[in-house]
Amino acid sequence: MDTAERRILWVNPVGTPAFDAETRELIEEVRRPGFVPDVRSLEHGPPHLEYHTYEHEATGPMLALMREADEAGYDAAIIGCFYDGGLREARELCSMPIVGMEEASMAYAATMGHRFSVIVGRRKWIPKMTDNAVLYGHERRLASMRSVEMGIPEVLADPEAFYNACIREARLAVLEDGAEVVILSEMATPAFWRRARAEVPFPIVDPGVACWKFAEMAADLYRTAGYSHSKIGGHEAPPSSVIVSR
Amino acid sequence: MDTAERRILWVNPVGTPAFDAETRELIEEVRRPGFVPDVRSLEHGPPHLEYHTYEHEATGPMLALMREADEAGYDAAIIGCFYDGGLREARELCSMPIVGMEEASMAYAATMGHRFSVIVGRRKWIPKMTDNAVLYGHERRLASMRSVEMGIPEVLADPEAFYNACIREARLAVLEDGAEVVILSEMATPAFWRRARAEVPFPIVDPGVACWKFAEMAADLYRTAGYSHSKIGGHEAPPSSVIVSR
Amino acid sequence: MDTAERRILWVNPVGTPAFDAETRELIEEVRRPGFVPDVRSLEHGPPHLEYHTYEHEATGPMLALMREADEAGYDAAIIGCFYDGGLREARELCSMPIVGMEEASMAYAATMGHRFSVIVGRRKWIPKMTDNAVLYGHERRLASMRSVEMGIPEVLADPEAFYNACIREARLAVLEDGAEVVILSEMATPAFWRRARAEVPFPIVDPGVACWKFAEMAADLYRTAGYSHSKIGGHEAPPSSVIVSR
Amino acid sequence: MDTAERRILWVNPVGTPAFDAETRELIEEVRRPGFVPDVRSLEHGPPHLEYHTYEHEATGPMLALMREADEAGYDAAIIGCFYDGGLREARELCSMPIVGMEEASMAYAATMGHRFSVIVGRRKWIPKMTDNAVLYGHERRLASMRSVEMGIPEVLADPEAFYNACIREARLAVLEDGAEVVILSEMATPAFWRRARAEVPFPIVDPGVACWKFAEMAADLYRTAGYSHSKIGGHEAPPSSVIVSR
Amino acid sequence: MDTAERRILWVNPVGTPAFDAETRELIEEVRRPGFVPDVRSLEHGPPHLEYHTYEHEATGPMLALMREADEAGYDAAIIGCFYDGGLREARELCSMPIVGMEEASMAYAATMGHRFSVIVGRRKWIPKMTDNAVLYGHERRLASMRSVEMGIPEVLADPEAFYNACIREARLAVLEDGAEVVILSEMATPAFWRRARAEVPFPIVDPGVACWKFAEMAADLYRTAGYSHSKIGGHEAPPSSVIVSR
Amino acid sequence: MDTAERRILWVNPVGTPAFDAETRELIEEVRRPGFVPDVRSLEHGPPHLEYHTYEHEATGPMLALMREADEAGYDAAIIGCFYDGGLREARELCSMPIVGMEEASMAYAATMGHRFSVIVGRRKWIPKMTDNAVLYGHERRLASMRSVEMGIPEVLADPEAFYNACIREARLAVLEDGAEVVILSEMATPAFWRRARAEVPFPIVDPGVACWKFAEMAADLYRTAGYSHSKIGGHEAPPSSVIVSR
Repeated sequence: MDTAERRILWVNPVGTPAFDAETRELIEEVRRPGFVPDVRSLEHGPPHLEYHTYEHEATGPMLALMREADEAGYDAAIIGCFYDGGLREARELCSMPIVGMEEASMAYAATMGHRFSVIVGRRKWIPKMTDNAVLYGHERRLASMRSVEMGIPEVLADPEAFYNACIREARLAVLEDGAEVVILSEMATPAFWRRARAEVPFPIVDPGVACWKFAEMAADLYRTAGYSHSKIGGHEAPPSSVIVSR
Repeated sequence: MDTAERRILWVNPVGTPAFDAETRELIEEVRRPGFVPDVRSLEHGPPHLEYHTYEHEATGPMLALMREADEAGYDAAIIGCFYDGGLREARELCSMPIVGMEEASMAYAATMGHRFSVIVGRRKWIPKMTDNAVLYGHERRLASMRSVEMGIPEVLADPEAFYNACIREARLAVLEDGAEVVILSEMATPAFWRRARAEVPFPIVDPGVACWKFAEMAADLYRTAGYSHSKIGGHEAPPSSVIVSR
Repeated sequence: MDTAERRILWVNPVGTPAFDAETRELIEEVRRPGFVPDVRSLEHGPPHLEYHTYEHEATGPMLALMREADEAGYDAAIIGCFYDGGLREARELCSMPIVGMEEASMAYAATMGHRFSVIVGRRKWIPKMTDNAVLYGHERRLASMRSVEMGIPEVLADPEAFYNACIREARLAVLEDGAEVVILSEMATPAFWRRARAEVPFPIVDPGVACWKFAEMAADLYRTAGYSHSKIGGHEAPPSSVIVSR
Repeated sequence: MDTAERRILWVNPVGTPAFDAETRELIEEVRRPGFVPDVRSLEHGPPHLEYHTYEHEATGPMLALMREADEAGYDAAIIGCFYDGGLREARELCSMPIVGMEEASMAYAATMGHRFSVIVGRRKWIPKMTDNAVLYGHERRLASMRSVEMGIPEVLADPEAFYNACIREARLAVLEDGAEVVILSEMATPAFWRRARAEVPFPIVDPGVACWKFAEMAADLYRTAGYSHSKIGGHEAPPSSVIVSR
Repeated sequence: MDTAERRILWVNPVGTPAFDAETRELIEEVRRPGFVPDVRSLEHGPPHLEYHTYEHEATGPMLALMREADEAGYDAAIIGCFYDGGLREARELCSMPIVGMEEASMAYAATMGHRFSVIVGRRKWIPKMTDNAVLYGHERRLASMRSVEMGIPEVLADPEAFYNACIREARLAVLEDGAEVVILSEMATPAFWRRARAEVPFPIVDPGVACWKFAEMAADLYRTAGYSHSKIGGHEAPPSSVIVSR
Repeated sequence: MDTAERRILWVNPVGTPAFDAETRELIEEVRRPGFVPDVRSLEHGPPHLEYHTYEHEATGPMLALMREADEAGYDAAIIGCFYDGGLREARELCSMPIVGMEEASMAYAATMGHRFSVIVGRRKWIPKMTDNAVLYGHERRLASMRSVEMGIPEVLADPEAFYNACIREARLAVLEDGAEVVILSEMATPAFWRRARAEVPFPIVDPGVACWKFAEMAADLYRTAGYSHSKIGGHEAPPSSVIVSR
């Protein structure tokens, strides 16, 4: 029996702590005892990640946090964004498992039904998220990506409109695209989920919940069975002496 | 924080309890406190599952055990065979999540490296296991299936030969097929794993370990967030009144 | 010239002889002299196959009938259901070719046009039938699966509504999904076909007709050229002594 | 019961009748009574079809023969070459079903085992034959294409060497590439097949046999059930008045 | 620096010079100095290429023109039709690079956005153009093929209706199918493009422009770096002595 | 006729000007008059790009150079690394077309033969380069990636060994993997190419040559026809005011 305490780093890769409290709250609802979250955001970074350039800006500081945690003996780390930006680099740099929000959500959703759809904020997000899905192996399982056409600021400004748009698109994904499961590409509040579960007869996955639980599993598999990213190919680490400082 | 106890049914779908003790031992090594295993085999069933007809024979009694557990409030169940036989039917019949050994092992291995190989016992196994991999979405990630050409009885009779064959094929999978990770399609002993981890520089996944931890995650997601197999499509349950008794 | 008589077993894998007469009638319309049908249903079995659990229930008795026929020297056998349930097991057990309704219909329809659609009874059927189509190789050719949302009992109760729904969905498959050919996933009556052929300008395939003619071909190829399922891999037969009796 | 006589045109699309007699012989071995073959070659045409330009040269006269047969009420026609050259054009021009040797052989072989390999004469043939296989849907089922590196003249000059090379490559396809079934891309003699069947424990498909029997099925389905190439899309026929004469 | 003059043959594979002047005009707008176009049509040939049989009729004379140019030292040649008919044969016969309109347009469009759609004249065109796209590798990038249902004669008769239909379908491709780029499958006039560029906020590719510039690149790569179609496989040339004269 | 001068930025994304001179030399051999190269490397950056973390380090300064050039009215820019790192971000930030070395080389090689192989320096490179190939659409065309197992420093230290290893692996790619064309993933010297062209009978593509000529085409298409990356989806630019400075 595995009773060791595991520390899991969760990075919200934005230059604001605005999302950290609700991240901690969400984790608190679903974590097992023994898994200790360390939720962090960036000292300097973009306000959100709607643009790939912003993602790039956020990746350097996020990698620095992850490397530090890896050296400090953390057991897993989470990229708190559905683009999974920096996943390849983080796995190259760290020994501990790195969990991407999109990868984990889709890995689980793929076991929940024949096909799943993803609700995204804006059409802009679809190309990269779809490319990720292709590389993760879910091309055939991805029924559709549907956009509510609300950027992060709009979502924050009008949560009621966001809720309604999500539910409408989720229903259409089921009716028109053949989805049996829906994944939200953004974390939502407990209130959102209580309403959603009462109103729709099919599962909608919160990516924060899915990736946190995936990280608990990854942390245990790492420490108990030694499973982490293979280091003999694409994730071979650079020699530590020549890592360019940031 | 989620502190509830979860009961997980593990069915070894064969008509012999011969594998149950070592299954319990393996689970004991990796389980988190709070997850209680119930390891079962079949009262009447085939001696092993090398043939699809045997799998079919085993599926009926396995489904009966799972249905009973589902009604008794279990939190998840595991099909203890890498063919994942009966996955579709079990998900149709049950509310709790059902975890297949091949599905869970591959879902996790796909996050551990660019491509993975599977070591199988006999060439005979490859078609169905490959078809599963295709449907699970791992066609592009599956570097190869390599056979040690030892049936279950031979594996039991000569574990040293089995170990050597597995390590040899795993190394070839890496060198010739481009695998970064290897999955064994059969559970192995703690002694096997101690040697393997000391000898090879890349991860080899035990399907029993992977599926148990996946089931812990599934059980928590089911009870905490309500995630289980969608019931609006392929897993729609038959009306209880007309289930044919066995 | 091949003038031998061939016996072909057709199993309607349900516990009722209700469909046998119309099956015989349909075969009689299209069979060549020399091909003798033996249409059978199950002594005990599910009323229909809307649920995968029912399919599983039906598979055991169906396999028993097929094995018996194989030993009696039959030349081919047909699984009379579009789910093709038990195809893998039957090919493992038998020497004669086994023909699946979905496999045969799609193999022929794929030669008739660029893309085809399938009209199914209920959304529930789509996941497994689509998975089959993927494994048979028709993913790119499958324009769509469209459901009339009528279960078997409803079809029997209101054939006029069924006819109208089928024609409507077939037309939509052509207009909206790019299909050039349509496959019905259920056998229809001669009256249905007379109307359909007069009304629509594109071919609609009856799966019973397609699989019967495919079985005639398979029976001849088996006896004349020795072609049947390869026994060196996935269809390797279990040793006869250890087949579990049912 | 369908007792009508069916006439099937077989075109060897080369400018020599050298292959016609053995084609008739092969058909005679496997045909059902009622199916009457009309084996033809071209008055003027290339000596063989090793080059795509030769194929192009042969297509015009072949189409002329097929069109004539279609107008004369034939029931099906066969392109006697594994490149299936002119399939699209013939289906555009004719009402009767047109059968391609590669398409028919692969459609049947795909039902005989998990994966199949094709033995080709020269590496030169592989690109087009592979492209066809992709479009027919068999990419995942095609284990390999293996070349014996013997052009048509060499095959005719040394049949013993051809036999040995075919058997060697067929065995390697099974051992190294995972094939369960092998397709020869050229027709072989009865003597070839007697030896092959006695020596190898897996099925090898003769494309002439497979396409002839496929054509019998197609002819019956055409006349009995009205199934032929859909005319509402890619096979829409040109207005007869403006067909350019040859 | 490469200052040599390059001669590029453009064949409009129809039996009318009606399109040659506007082809020259279009080339003149975009060509670099040093690239000299030779625009040709067929002495005898079909009026247009709506039917595959017409394409076949046009291929022989087109190949003759290309072979002659290749022997005369031309630097590249273009097939002036979006079906790319004869591409395989021309590459077999010639040493210089051959550019297909569909292949070149899609190769470039695939670098311009995540997914592209193609506007075709008639539904009839979709199967072959889609098959080409699959073989060129763009299956995942092809958002849709949308038809304006206007044949070549109708396009010539009512350019205003054609313009409006193209813009409407292009907008729908973006809004409903997820395209970011649109390819027209027919060349359009400078007037068409001036209006289109002013009206729609996403790029629409003219296949004539794309393939001409691709041919300039191909001609330079051929002469400067020696890059042309590989001659060791599918494009191996027939022995010159046995090419059948036309 | 298009006689305007085009300025093309080529960034070697490393913190050393060591490769700039030979880049200029290579461009000088193949460029058309009118296309003016501006070859740049980074003031601060990693010594090479063997690791994805190094790539990430290099991307920021490379984007800054590209943005500046875009604002200064350049006509195209090239990422001088076969990983194509930063392609998505650069296309998001810039109006001019951005050319990636791997994308351009593969887009051209795919028109040169049925399948191509890529010679890489180290196994480490294969996962990301393969993922790119998948997303670019060349999965079916990619015969293999073969590694010479020489890192950049080793290549520079022993060019003779590098040459021999490249030629050996290129020959094996043709003989064993079915490639008709080979792409080198690193630029080579004029001396390398003179020897290679004399020794092997199939084309080997230099990625520097291919991407330079592709960029000439892209620059012309941008300025003459207005073709560049679509800005309505994944490449939508961030609002200029909130771009995080570096």
